Amino acid sequence: MPETQLQIQSNLKSSGVLELRLAEIDVPTPGPGDVLVRVEASPINPSDLGLLFGPADMTTARSSGTAERPVLEADVPAAMLKAMSARLDQPLPVGNEGAGIVVAAGADEAAQALMGRTVAGVGGGMYSQYRCLPAAFCLPLAEGTTPEEGASCFVNPLTALGMIETMKQEGHSALVHTAAASNLGQMLNKACIADGIPLVNVVRRAEQADLLRGIGAKIVVDSSRPEFLDELTDALAETGATLAFDATGGGRLAGQILSCMERAALRSGGSYSPYGSTTHKQVYIYGSLDRSPTEFQRNFGAAWGIGGWLLTPFLQKVGAERGQALRQRVADEIKTTFASHYDQKISLAEALSMDAIRQYGRQATGHKFLIEPQR
Amino acid sequence: MPETQLQIQSNLKSSGVLELRLAEIDVPTPGPGDVLVRVEASPINPSDLGLLFGPADMTTARSSGTAERPVLEADVPAAMLKAMSARLDQPLPVGNEGAGIVVAAGADEAAQALMGRTVAGVGGGMYSQYRCLPAAFCLPLAEGTTPEEGASCFVNPLTALGMIETMKQEGHSALVHTAAASNLGQMLNKACIADGIPLVNVVRRAEQADLLRGIGAKIVVDSSRPEFLDELTDALAETGATLAFDATGGGRLAGQILSCMERAALRSGGSYSPYGSTTHKQVYIYGSLDRSPTEFQRNFGAAWGIGGWLLTPFLQKVGAERGQALRQRVADEIKTTFASHYDQKISLAEALSMDAIRQYGRQATGHKFLIEPQR
Repeated sequence: MPETQLQIQSNLKSSGVLELRLAEIDVPTPGPGDVLVRVEASPINPSDLGLLFGPADMTTARSSGTAERPVLEADVPAAMLKAMSARLDQPLPVGNEGAGIVVAAGADEAAQALMGRTVAGVGGGMYSQYRCLPAAFCLPLAEGTTPEEGASCFVNPLTALGMIETMKQEGHSALVHTAAASNLGQMLNKACIADGIPLVNVVRRAEQADLLRGIGAKIVVDSSRPEFLDELTDALAETGATLAFDATGGGRLAGQILSCMERAALRSGGSYSPYGSTTHKQVYIYGSLDRSPTEFQRNFGAAWGIGGWLLTPFLQKVGAERGQALRQRVADEIKTTFASHYDQKISLAEALSMDAIRQYGRQATGHKFLIEPQR
Repeated sequence: MPETQLQIQSNLKSSGVLELRLAEIDVPTPGPGDVLVRVEASPINPSDLGLLFGPADMTTARSSGTAERPVLEADVPAAMLKAMSARLDQPLPVGNEGAGIVVAAGADEAAQALMGRTVAGVGGGMYSQYRCLPAAFCLPLAEGTTPEEGASCFVNPLTALGMIETMKQEGHSALVHTAAASNLGQMLNKACIADGIPLVNVVRRAEQADLLRGIGAKIVVDSSRPEFLDELTDALAETGATLAFDATGGGRLAGQILSCMERAALRSGGSYSPYGSTTHKQVYIYGSLDRSPTEFQRNFGAAWGIGGWLLTPFLQKVGAERGQALRQRVADEIKTTFASHYDQKISLAEALSMDAIRQYGRQATGHKFLIEPQR
């Protein structure tokens, strides 16, 4: 076992500069309930970019250091620093999830049981060569599942299942999903087909619609078409969907979905009320692909809500037992429903190259990176 | 008992014209569980204007008919007609609430018990000389309470109490209220003082701040001041308020409240998370004084919600028993906490005069009308 290891760290300095560096830190020793995972594969998800880049303007990024020990700097608009006071001047580890081999374990039975196993792990700081995690944060993968196959077991698969679970808990019977051709969107589509849940896939381009139809999507609506709002209303009326998960966040899409839900609800008739239909219509914003302000006309009655949605509080809410059942489904279906594909595999140092940095901003369009820390 | 009576009716015609008229209709006969109320006083609340005017452009209003039987017409923008299909070409009665004397009653005990009593009533169509209502829709007023004093027992008082009740049910411990110098806002202020609930009053002008401080408001924040956002954040940090009721709806205020709540939450420290504080922050929009689109920057983490709030579904949710307790409190405190003041008393015909119509749009600024249908 080496004594030191490499880890990506993001430091937002009060001077107004973001510094990303490959730091050399000690390999930790597991406590009684912990395991030490030799990280073999960790994806760069859109949800990692918030911590990695903070509010920095990455068009100002410049590189120093060496190819083996890169240091990247970028400027942070002064107006954004204030809201970030909680993280200023702290080198933070990054990387929500990944998979690897358990190479050391604490004395507890649950930890010992994982020794030598290939596990998926969640808990931040996965862009490291070694990551010490509580055994409970690890999901043992079935024999024959590689770390690369298991690298994305948590963020996207559990978010997809969390959407379905939220739908059931809040009394809806169908779903709307935006940016639906994403890796996550494809998983949700497969899971909804398997579970018999009507899903309205909203995409922004014809190619994305084709991609989804190619993997069996029944309802796809393309927001670039002039008939978008009418076609969305038809799809909502057909499915009865009154819950949407929106990955874009900014602009008018969330409000348009609520408006079309209201139009669909009013189609079924009933007497007029100045307060609109009594059907509760909900949009949860879980991403921010569009960073512009959210804007909506309130033309959808009084029974509506828009809110944030995040995986971790959802898992806390459903409780340990249900959460474990969802995790086990992911492990069981990691090569099918929840399979991820990566366009590029890179080392920790390469993850901080100017080449890679330039592409992260375009991740939303589908170019997905996998970091291999042992490379 | 007369055979016919006068009633204000609003008809949104598919030709694109709104027609308001004073119609002569039959005086109804109460069913077994009903009472007939001779309406003596009925307020024009902002919440009545939606049904009264629909989406008509009231700057195009023109009068015909006579002073005793006025007919008003106004044009409706073609784009708005589609969303209104459920109410087209139906003369609709208007007027959410009012008070009067029970002059006839059905055979049921509950109805008979109200015979001769002064009651407040709710249920629409109160801009009529006589209104037949189920006995359960009536709140008997104490001896010595006049119909004018009891005319506004439901909409504003129950909304104020509904805000407090919602705060408790959803686990918050303090409130924010916008357009806080309104009739409703003054009631909420008095009720919160009585119940020991911290209330952040948000107003738009210095005079409104003075008015509220004059009736004992402890915390008033004026959005016209350049220091508004800092002062609001201070008030939120001091009170711990994480729930707001917003009467304006449009513009940036709802989002600003969420942003300031987040800043206040982060002041209490804790480690940095790219998803912001874990404190759930909620704004309910219950009015639309600002008809412009709602717009917000999502700079308040992931634990937030914006939604519609309406009295009727709230009352359905809390159930009959709790609802009755709230109503009884209103009746008990109608001359103190829930006292309303009117700037102008008018007849049914005068309510449809051009003079009155021009002023309704300015109701938000405080000029409050009381219709006296027996005038």
